[in-house]
Amino acid sequence: MSDFNTGLPSIRQIQSSIKDKREVELKLVTNDLLMGKILWQDSNCICLVDENEQQILIWRRAIAYLKPKA
Amino acid sequence: MSDFNTGLPSIRQIQSSIKDKREVELKLVTNDLLMGKILWQDSNCICLVDENEQQILIWRRAIAYLKPKA
Amino acid sequence: MSDFNTGLPSIRQIQSSIKDKREVELKLVTNDLLMGKILWQDSNCICLVDENEQQILIWRRAIAYLKPKA
Amino acid sequence: MSDFNTGLPSIRQIQSSIKDKREVELKLVTNDLLMGKILWQDSNCICLVDENEQQILIWRRAIAYLKPKA
Amino acid sequence: MSDFNTGLPSIRQIQSSIKDKREVELKLVTNDLLMGKILWQDSNCICLVDENEQQILIWRRAIAYLKPKA
Amino acid sequence: MSDFNTGLPSIRQIQSSIKDKREVELKLVTNDLLMGKILWQDSNCICLVDENEQQILIWRRAIAYLKPKA
Repeated sequence: MSDFNTGLPSIRQIQSSIKDKREVELKLVTNDLLMGKILWQDSNCICLVDENEQQILIWRRAIAYLKPKA
Repeated sequence: MSDFNTGLPSIRQIQSSIKDKREVELKLVTNDLLMGKILWQDSNCICLVDENEQQILIWRRAIAYLKPKA
Repeated sequence: MSDFNTGLPSIRQIQSSIKDKREVELKLVTNDLLMGKILWQDSNCICLVDENEQQILIWRRAIAYLKPKA
Repeated sequence: MSDFNTGLPSIRQIQSSIKDKREVELKLVTNDLLMGKILWQDSNCICLVDENEQQILIWRRAIAYLKPKA
Repeated sequence: MSDFNTGLPSIRQIQSSIKDKREVELKLVTNDLLMGKILWQDSNCICLVDENEQQILIWRRAIAYLKPKA
Repeated sequence: MSDFNTGLPSIRQIQSSIKDKREVELKLVTNDLLMGKILWQDSNCICLVDENEQQILIWRRAIAYLKPKA
C-alpha cells in the first residue's frame, strides 16, 4: 500500500489534476499507456475516465509514471 | 497486502460490480487479460467467474487495472 | 508478505483445494504455468506437487492467479 | 512505501541532485529510460522535469536505478 | 520483507535443503534459472553456491519458485 | 522496504564487499546487468561505482541477485 497522506506533493499533484480535469498519460508496469482524466484517487487505486467515458480502475502498485498528455 | 477498508472508493466500486454482476476485464502484470464477473474480494485476492463458470483466484498484487467489459 | 488470516475466503479456498486434492493451474508473474496439487500453504509460499511427485515451493508474491486445472 | 528518512544516504543524494539541478537518467522497471532534472521527491514519487519542461511523476516502486546523465 | 519465522513450513523446508546440501533450482522473476546448493537464508536473501563454488546472493523478493534439481 | 538490520548475513556480506572493494555483478529485475564496486548501502538503495567512476543508485527492490564479478 502507498503512503496516502494528502499533504504529500505527489498526492496533491494528482489532486490538482483531478480539480483541473487535466488530460494525463499513465504508463503502467505492463507497458500499457492509458490516457484520460483522473476522476478520483484512494490509497489503492487511481480511477481514470478515458475518451469513451469508460472508467478504468488502476492499481497504484502497477503505475510507473504519470505525465500531462503530450 | 492492500488497504482493504470497505469505505475506500476502490473497494466499494468492486463491491458494486459484484452486486450488479457486471462483466469486467482485468489486466494483470503478466499482460493476461481476464474477463468475467467478480464473485467476491478479500484483502489478498479477487475471485472471478469466467464464461465457463470457472472460478479464477486473482492476486491483487498482480492486477494492473480493471474496467467494464468492452 | 500476504494477509495470512485463515478466515479469509482466499485462504480458505486454497485450504479446500488442499483437502480435496484438486488439480490446479498456477500462473506466475514470470508467465510460467505450473500444474499440480497443493500440499500446503503458509504466509510466504504455496507448495505444489506436480505429476512427477516433485515438490515446488512457490512464492505467493510471484503468483498471478490460480484456477482449477482445465 | 519506501523508507523516507531524510538522513538516509539515498535520500540525501537525490536531495543534492535537486539542489545542484543535475541532469539524471532514471531507468524504470518497464525498461523506460527517462532523462531530466529532479524537481522534488516524497515517499511515493520522484518528480522529473524533462527537456520540454514537462513534469513527470515517477513512482519510486517502479525505479530500477538513477545515475548522472551520460 | 518476507515473514521470516523459523517455524513456517517454507522457511523450514529451505532450512532442511541447507542441512542436506540438496541441489536446487531457483526460478527468478527475471526468468533466470539458477542452480546450486543453498548455503544460508535470512529475511532478505537466499545465498546459493553454484557448481563453480561462486556465492550468489539472491533477493527473496525476486524469487518465483524453488524446486529440487531435475 | 527491506529489513536493514546490520546483523543480517545479507547486509554483512554486502558490507564486506564494500570494505574489500570487491568487483560485483548486480542483476536487476529489468534484466540489466551492472558491474562495479559497491560504495555504500542503506535501507532503500545500493550505490555502485562503475569502471568510469560513475555512481549508480540502485533500488534494492529492483535487485534480483548479486555475485562476484566473473
